[in-house]
Amino acid sequence: MFYLVGLGLGDAQDITVKGLEVVQKAKRVYLEAYTSVLTVGQDALEKYYGRDIILADRDMVEQNSDELIAEAETEDIAFLVVGDPLGATTHTDLILRAVEKGVQYRIIHNASIMNAIGCCGLQLYNYGEAVSIVFWTETWRPDSFYDKIAANRERGLHTLCLLDIKMKEQSLENLMRGRKIYEPPRFMTVQQAAEQLLEIVEKKNKQSKENNALSPDSVCVGLARVGGEDQSIVAATLRQLATVDMGGPLHSLIIPGNMHPLEMDMLRLFALDDTVKASLTS
Amino acid sequence: MFYLVGLGLGDAQDITVKGLEVVQKAKRVYLEAYTSVLTVGQDALEKYYGRDIILADRDMVEQNSDELIAEAETEDIAFLVVGDPLGATTHTDLILRAVEKGVQYRIIHNASIMNAIGCCGLQLYNYGEAVSIVFWTETWRPDSFYDKIAANRERGLHTLCLLDIKMKEQSLENLMRGRKIYEPPRFMTVQQAAEQLLEIVEKKNKQSKENNALSPDSVCVGLARVGGEDQSIVAATLRQLATVDMGGPLHSLIIPGNMHPLEMDMLRLFALDDTVKASLTS
Repeated sequence: MFYLVGLGLGDAQDITVKGLEVVQKAKRVYLEAYTSVLTVGQDALEKYYGRDIILADRDMVEQNSDELIAEAETEDIAFLVVGDPLGATTHTDLILRAVEKGVQYRIIHNASIMNAIGCCGLQLYNYGEAVSIVFWTETWRPDSFYDKIAANRERGLHTLCLLDIKMKEQSLENLMRGRKIYEPPRFMTVQQAAEQLLEIVEKKNKQSKENNALSPDSVCVGLARVGGEDQSIVAATLRQLATVDMGGPLHSLIIPGNMHPLEMDMLRLFALDDTVKASLTS
Repeated sequence: MFYLVGLGLGDAQDITVKGLEVVQKAKRVYLEAYTSVLTVGQDALEKYYGRDIILADRDMVEQNSDELIAEAETEDIAFLVVGDPLGATTHTDLILRAVEKGVQYRIIHNASIMNAIGCCGLQLYNYGEAVSIVFWTETWRPDSFYDKIAANRERGLHTLCLLDIKMKEQSLENLMRGRKIYEPPRFMTVQQAAEQLLEIVEKKNKQSKENNALSPDSVCVGLARVGGEDQSIVAATLRQLATVDMGGPLHSLIIPGNMHPLEMDMLRLFALDDTVKASLTS
């Protein structure tokens, strides 16, 4: 059996009891290590589970997925994923390969950023399409996510912005020379996301006075380490968020649409200052 | 401390290890019993946790929330919620009351229908706004959710339809006479939701030939008991879903928007018949 086990968002103990039982009895345990990271490291997981864990990066999974699936034909294999196992398409691909080989699979669900953001008080059913904000480079500065935020806001809906994670980046030189030397992992912060968004907002507002989907004074929500012991939530203007240090990864940004009074009541708990607090009043 | 503990979607063992520890050490354990149900009953939870559980229905929570919060001032109180604790506004309200009284709270997240629907292969970041489909009565047949589905589809986005749950309904007579006699709980099935939606689709399509957001032949996805041992997923036309019996609660319905090839590959695993399978090809 091929088990895809969600680890949730915080630490080793956020695994479900069902998931832990799978990990403890599985022949081999893999940890997916390229779409997200837990606030605790591999060591902490190994110690808590009492099991050795094989770190599975993107290359490993893409190149060895047939082996991995073949193992699961006769043995219980556990493939651990931070959050919920179905958060990324790569894992869908693994399931399809398993089914193709006649290998049974089982998903052990858990919390993921897509539902745990409920912690800030904005209701999940008031969200529109989620967007991704990627690191800009000197030559590549995509801003199409702004239109999705604007379309959501037009319908009164909130937008979750998933922030870029670069896990095994190669420098252009290393890539061209085929050297498998990787840069340190990078995680986009709320501050960086807010800076990029602010730049787009200012450009769009200059182009058209009628475009008022978002202004530098719009109240947005920065979240860091959701589900962890040191989780942090800040409601502040976009301009303010571009200067706020929210600490270690992972970060997310929410652009609220229309807010229900109860949503504002809850968001006020996280207001950066009294001005923000006052603006969150119905 | 006031702990809001998510139970996930399947059975007693879908609680997280962290959640289980809270339940085992808490002074009192409440189970929220009006916005959702687990596939297992209170007895099974009590036996598994080794704790007595106090069933908290809507009246109980609304009338006694001050007591509940006051207890949490000096003791650890666990408030168990099926899925993730922040799925319903009522729980936001409990948090606000806790903060107001200076009582600390802590959320233990878990999977909820909002992210576990990833199991059908449609990617979570391709969903637009979720909608609710309620039981129609002879005189009340709301259909505004259709416009939201249409707006999502126009943008190529999937729609999760949350289906009505009636937990402690009173008949009109009992309500008027103030008798606290309740009807048996009702859970909308995929079949019922598809029937109602089909009726709306046929009406809209008669009104305007240009309205083709959805047709009786559109492939939709019915899901039952997501996360449970006997989970069931069926991809079929809306017309077919109106005749499919998907068994016990809880049910959900998904109206796909534009599908990525990998999403279609995955959805084909759940196709009702070869015609549906053939239509899920890029």
